[in-house]
Amino acid sequence: MTGKYEVIIIGAGISGIKTAIDLYRGGVNNILILEARNCIGGRLKSVKSENFPHVTYDLGASWFHDALANPLFDKARELGNIDYYFDDGELVYFDKDDKTVPSWKFEHITDEIICYISLSYLKDPNKPDISLKQICQEYYEKKHDLIDPDRWGKAIATIRIFGELWHGESWDNLSAKFVFDEDGHLGRNVLVKSGYSKVIQNEMNELPDKFETTNIKLNTSVKCIDYSNDIINIHTGNDSFSCDYVVLTLPRSLYSIDDPNDPSYIKWVPELPGDFKKLSHYFEAGSLGKVVFEFSECFWSETVDRFYALSKQEPKNPNDPQPWDYPTILINYQANSGVPALVALTQNPLSSTIENFDPKTKNERIWQLFQPVIAQISNAKVPPQPINILHTSWNNDIWARGAYCTSKVGCPDSETLTNLFAKGLSNKIRFAGSETVDGSANGCAHGGWFSGQREAKYILDDIAKKL
Amino acid sequence: MTGKYEVIIIGAGISGIKTAIDLYRGGVNNILILEARNCIGGRLKSVKSENFPHVTYDLGASWFHDALANPLFDKARELGNIDYYFDDGELVYFDKDDKTVPSWKFEHITDEIICYISLSYLKDPNKPDISLKQICQEYYEKKHDLIDPDRWGKAIATIRIFGELWHGESWDNLSAKFVFDEDGHLGRNVLVKSGYSKVIQNEMNELPDKFETTNIKLNTSVKCIDYSNDIINIHTGNDSFSCDYVVLTLPRSLYSIDDPNDPSYIKWVPELPGDFKKLSHYFEAGSLGKVVFEFSECFWSETVDRFYALSKQEPKNPNDPQPWDYPTILINYQANSGVPALVALTQNPLSSTIENFDPKTKNERIWQLFQPVIAQISNAKVPPQPINILHTSWNNDIWARGAYCTSKVGCPDSETLTNLFAKGLSNKIRFAGSETVDGSANGCAHGGWFSGQREAKYILDDIAKKL
Repeated sequence: MTGKYEVIIIGAGISGIKTAIDLYRGGVNNILILEARNCIGGRLKSVKSENFPHVTYDLGASWFHDALANPLFDKARELGNIDYYFDDGELVYFDKDDKTVPSWKFEHITDEIICYISLSYLKDPNKPDISLKQICQEYYEKKHDLIDPDRWGKAIATIRIFGELWHGESWDNLSAKFVFDEDGHLGRNVLVKSGYSKVIQNEMNELPDKFETTNIKLNTSVKCIDYSNDIINIHTGNDSFSCDYVVLTLPRSLYSIDDPNDPSYIKWVPELPGDFKKLSHYFEAGSLGKVVFEFSECFWSETVDRFYALSKQEPKNPNDPQPWDYPTILINYQANSGVPALVALTQNPLSSTIENFDPKTKNERIWQLFQPVIAQISNAKVPPQPINILHTSWNNDIWARGAYCTSKVGCPDSETLTNLFAKGLSNKIRFAGSETVDGSANGCAHGGWFSGQREAKYILDDIAKKL
Repeated sequence: MTGKYEVIIIGAGISGIKTAIDLYRGGVNNILILEARNCIGGRLKSVKSENFPHVTYDLGASWFHDALANPLFDKARELGNIDYYFDDGELVYFDKDDKTVPSWKFEHITDEIICYISLSYLKDPNKPDISLKQICQEYYEKKHDLIDPDRWGKAIATIRIFGELWHGESWDNLSAKFVFDEDGHLGRNVLVKSGYSKVIQNEMNELPDKFETTNIKLNTSVKCIDYSNDIINIHTGNDSFSCDYVVLTLPRSLYSIDDPNDPSYIKWVPELPGDFKKLSHYFEAGSLGKVVFEFSECFWSETVDRFYALSKQEPKNPNDPQPWDYPTILINYQANSGVPALVALTQNPLSSTIENFDPKTKNERIWQLFQPVIAQISNAKVPPQPINILHTSWNNDIWARGAYCTSKVGCPDSETLTNLFAKGLSNKIRFAGSETVDGSANGCAHGGWFSGQREAKYILDDIAKKL
């Protein structure tokens, strides 16, 4: 199979679909989307509960972030066909010792640490980047005489929870310089109860009915992109396609793969420019993971939206994680959906360790890890066993290689990385994806949507110039 | 009396004193400070409790703000002779209906309103400035279907408390555009238990012992500044002085006085430039006031540092304020100093109304206002009468005319106002004062200190240029 298209889009996630929508609207309809997976949506991945009809868990993005500036949320409100829920009501912090930790016990210290970090790099832009953990220690060395030890312990536990469970990465690896850089959320967070697959469906509805079958080719991974000529040639395993423009919407992590034997490897002709090589280490993703626990009944508060489990200890051996080694956030589906389920957020290396547990004993090991944590929010003396456990596998997913971008020690600022892609290789070779937009939408579903909008506009403008 | 000085500093507050210190260090010792009051310190004004020995209340500045970037706090730590206290431990929000309002009931809405405000003016820089109250209403009109009414009520009550009790001004008058503009505090707040007069004393100790008697002239208000010649002439009631440089450190509000019969009026020869006239309306200060209540025993929590009283009603008649008309913050001196006293923060117009209560019934009226509020934090059924009430009088203070700068509807951005002064009238006529520095130190004691440092350096550099 071959074919000549005006635009080929690689990836049928929200970025690629939005690119197609806007191109189509702009009069460009000779479009092909190549998708390596067997379904559209990319890292927007909803699964229906087998135990609770009408309940959907999102294994990828789960929230409309930036509720004041999120076109996907605005559209959901307008269409009225998406169930959503502001899960920012009552929240409870707790740790191994206390079933509730009032926020005054840490919040001013937490705020001051975050301020200390940003002041440090403002005052001395040449200060070497260190890990989030190291800079907390640096602050402590300077200020410990001013801080109550109990409040200090709780403050760094919250620093860790905020850093690790936004970036999906251990504070040992997170860049002190940039970890809280994009922290200015534009409004509240809204849980997408319907599941993001319905959001994707709303987008698809903006394309012609037949588009999905005629213009999207599933199970088709790109092996080679030859842009040595004016017409771009794209080779998949069996087929070749050519086009005037290509928009790549891959997760950024995939651009760092340089092993030709890797199934996700893409050969570029000519090679990607030096900047890509130089920075490719920082394309690697963190991994915000999720573990869904379904129970036969609710034995915790029915009204608390989220439980924040603070960790005061650190993993001795990442391959053999112990309860309380990592902070977690438990999302209460009893509160948001009326079913006895909790969704725990995890970070690397835990997310990866869980994915790689021996399948035979996996559920048992997961429950061993979380049982003592869930016991702290339990009204029952011993929490009953879950009836079902699900977990994400973003690290082992060869088309994702992690959940989304993170900020590791030594990384350049987010703008440098996003611009590398946003500027494109040329006016023909374009990049979209949530990791190609800077600011608060970086790494979010609506960021992907913005990037599709941006690239479609770029191409339409470029075509118009030539007329 | 006459005299010729190298530098005359007008005002012996922290800005003027710091200017003198740095000039002195730089070799300029022919300095005179003219001070209208009968004491040094300006709006740093500590009073000793008559009931509780060793307890001092600050009627002006009370905290080292910006603990991570405050040279006065650093010096206090170094010298070890200032008692200080981080009063950011347990805090309790409450209102007329509830003795405690958990922060989750408002904080995400509060944050979103603040975000909405900044986004509004970012998206449309030409959007007219409106009051803080109006923009809250605007937000509500757009978002009310997304917000639980109870949380909404509490959120605007907190918006009001944060805005009004930082700026000392009613949300009816506060500029939506700028009210939360300078909100990036650089670290925690530290209560100066010793009283700021001790901080002033530490500064004075950096000058020669005799400086206070020989170089500071108290009870001397400036009537006229003639800068029509190279040598500047300064006329007080009875005397004339001349100098090469003058540094004015007056509260900004005083520069707006244009009535020659006003005791604080200063005649400028030639007149102040047009920019000063044009903007003088915005020099007017807000008035963060304080009311000190001393009791014979503590009938409230001994450990809570601050109680935040949210108001859900608005004053019908500012001249006849009713309990709960205004939000207030109660600072718990039982927690910070071990004495049964509470200090309530007030804002205009309440601060002014209190100052103008008939002296005969003043204490009774003040207690009528605060008794129901204090009853909400009381363990006693009926709170016992205070044994003493003190209050600030910054509005009626002719050398202050309010507490410190505020941001009223229609005002220019803080930088425009501070720069107007910071750039000086010429290299001879300089301005210092906490209201001439931008950023988080604006309006704070350490802001005054920074401004003194800045102006001394300016003059020393200017002198060096001529050598």
